[in-house]
Amino acid sequence: MTEYDKKLIHPSAIVSPKAKLGLNVEIGPFTFVHDNVEIGDNSRIAGWCEIGVPTPLGNGEPLVIGANATIRSHSVIYESSTIGPRLVTGHHVCIREMTKAGIGLQLGSNGDIQGHCSIGDYLRTHRGVHIGQKSQIADYVWMFPDVLLTNDPTPPSEELIGPVVESFAVLCAKCTLLPGVRIGEGAVVGAHSLVGINVGPGMLATGSPAKVEYKASILRLRNDFSTKAYPWKKRFHRGYPEKIVAGWLSEF
Amino acid sequence: MTEYDKKLIHPSAIVSPKAKLGLNVEIGPFTFVHDNVEIGDNSRIAGWCEIGVPTPLGNGEPLVIGANATIRSHSVIYESSTIGPRLVTGHHVCIREMTKAGIGLQLGSNGDIQGHCSIGDYLRTHRGVHIGQKSQIADYVWMFPDVLLTNDPTPPSEELIGPVVESFAVLCAKCTLLPGVRIGEGAVVGAHSLVGINVGPGMLATGSPAKVEYKASILRLRNDFSTKAYPWKKRFHRGYPEKIVAGWLSEF
Amino acid sequence: MTEYDKKLIHPSAIVSPKAKLGLNVEIGPFTFVHDNVEIGDNSRIAGWCEIGVPTPLGNGEPLVIGANATIRSHSVIYESSTIGPRLVTGHHVCIREMTKAGIGLQLGSNGDIQGHCSIGDYLRTHRGVHIGQKSQIADYVWMFPDVLLTNDPTPPSEELIGPVVESFAVLCAKCTLLPGVRIGEGAVVGAHSLVGINVGPGMLATGSPAKVEYKASILRLRNDFSTKAYPWKKRFHRGYPEKIVAGWLSEF
Repeated sequence: MTEYDKKLIHPSAIVSPKAKLGLNVEIGPFTFVHDNVEIGDNSRIAGWCEIGVPTPLGNGEPLVIGANATIRSHSVIYESSTIGPRLVTGHHVCIREMTKAGIGLQLGSNGDIQGHCSIGDYLRTHRGVHIGQKSQIADYVWMFPDVLLTNDPTPPSEELIGPVVESFAVLCAKCTLLPGVRIGEGAVVGAHSLVGINVGPGMLATGSPAKVEYKASILRLRNDFSTKAYPWKKRFHRGYPEKIVAGWLSEF
Repeated sequence: MTEYDKKLIHPSAIVSPKAKLGLNVEIGPFTFVHDNVEIGDNSRIAGWCEIGVPTPLGNGEPLVIGANATIRSHSVIYESSTIGPRLVTGHHVCIREMTKAGIGLQLGSNGDIQGHCSIGDYLRTHRGVHIGQKSQIADYVWMFPDVLLTNDPTPPSEELIGPVVESFAVLCAKCTLLPGVRIGEGAVVGAHSLVGINVGPGMLATGSPAKVEYKASILRLRNDFSTKAYPWKKRFHRGYPEKIVAGWLSEF
Repeated sequence: MTEYDKKLIHPSAIVSPKAKLGLNVEIGPFTFVHDNVEIGDNSRIAGWCEIGVPTPLGNGEPLVIGANATIRSHSVIYESSTIGPRLVTGHHVCIREMTKAGIGLQLGSNGDIQGHCSIGDYLRTHRGVHIGQKSQIADYVWMFPDVLLTNDPTPPSEELIGPVVESFAVLCAKCTLLPGVRIGEGAVVGAHSLVGINVGPGMLATGSPAKVEYKASILRLRNDFSTKAYPWKKRFHRGYPEKIVAGWLSEF
């Protein structure tokens, strides 16, 4: 580490000299960074975090976190996971080993990624989301508070089958995906739904058990009834790179 | 700070000299108190807490917590919020910026107030409650475990519309309020309900989606079938000031 | 404490000299162990934990944790609870006072045992499970993510009535047990169910509100349709002692 980096590390933090920190990485009070860790430039890790927790369930590879990460306090991230640049976490999150996630992952407070799963770019989750092992999540997906992705059809068992969530899908608050269901591109799952069937691209699933009866495009903005709410990429662009948004808009 | 106060601060805690602590404020081990904080007399903050987290999303005002607060371990509270006296939190809670809360707020473990919301006096929540932005909560409200107040009718969007919860309302375990619904005074929402419609004063809402078919006053205590369970203020007074309870009872 | 033990205690941890630690007990960074604590041999407590939190709601007895415990980071356990050997917790859990739990308790991350309850041997819970006061849980029970056991039939009230969960029962993800219900031996409660009625031994309850229409033994493994999924003890044995499993298999 350079002298400059050391100034950004709180004196109460404990950072393994084997950990590889990029330039301008801040480490907050009472945080512990283990050996097997690589963190990209300009990242900020708040206090009380445990970064790179060793585990025999990993593959020996380091925890790799891309540049410009913001990791909020009391978070726990295991070794053997790879997370792209611009990670943002809330407080009290946990990301287990063997998670592969792309650019711009946002994981809300109390979120829990159980590892052994793959996540595309720009997954954004609100508070309390739980992503079980074997989940497969594509790009630009949204998950709202308390969403749950399960994986065991007949628990307890050894046959874990994660859900598959395609790009641009929206999982509304407190909905549950049962093992192995597929949520199609741009589909919307209503709040508090229990989804045991596949949801086709652009469709709307609601209820418990969820049924698929309408296209998501029937929904309108509440404050502007002339505007279709979905596909959302036509109208909501906050936080996405301009180039990506331009690509989305060129489709319409 | 006086010498006396310093004795109540654990030697491992870090307290900004700019923070304004009242008399007899205890600070637990490994807790960090930021600059922009005012804490009332006789308050106890346990260990591993982060108090007054700076954020550009606030208004520059300090975090103000009234007297006699009890903040349990691993809790996180942002600046630019104002919380009345006798705050009690469980463990691992988070209160974001721009929260205005009255007297006697009790927030159970893992609770999450997302900020930009207003809360009256004596809100009591159990474990795992999540209060979204723009929520408006009146006095003497109860929320039981895993209750969720949402705010986005067509997520993701920029048009957040919080639910409105009137005084004495009871939200039972795991129920979800959809954006903008109004729960009337003394109304009761059953466990695991999904509420997409307004619930009139004193009414009972149950189901998924919730329907309103009965008055809450039809419910009886299980161990004393001659006693109506609601309005609860007639029979349950633990922890409320005598004067307030006397006012409640004078109505009957 | 012996010199050897001291080497296993992280220099940043704070351990009361009154706490009774067994042999080979590891204590992680920034953890605090209070006075009224007994921890069995070969236990590992990770960082940022608070062990033996004092409370006037206990009975003055110590927190007793059996040998070979693994307590993950940011966990909080109160005094006046007794937990058998081979406890395993996830991160950010809370176990309150007056909890009695047997051998091999596994409590997933963000789990919350509210105390004043009794738990048999080998309870295994996944992430986010909440066990209310007065719950009675027998041996070899499973609870999957976000399961909730409630206890107040007419909240708020003083008449807490916990659910009773018999041996080998399986509570699937996000299900809620209402106060006082009894889940029979080997019964299965489906995901996202709201259970307000008793479920007989070996039966399957599903829905919201849950109905009991079938035996759990109608369910088959998804990848091996010739094999009945329940009773699970016939086919799933990971982590249970051989002697116990031999007893289970002798029944078939």
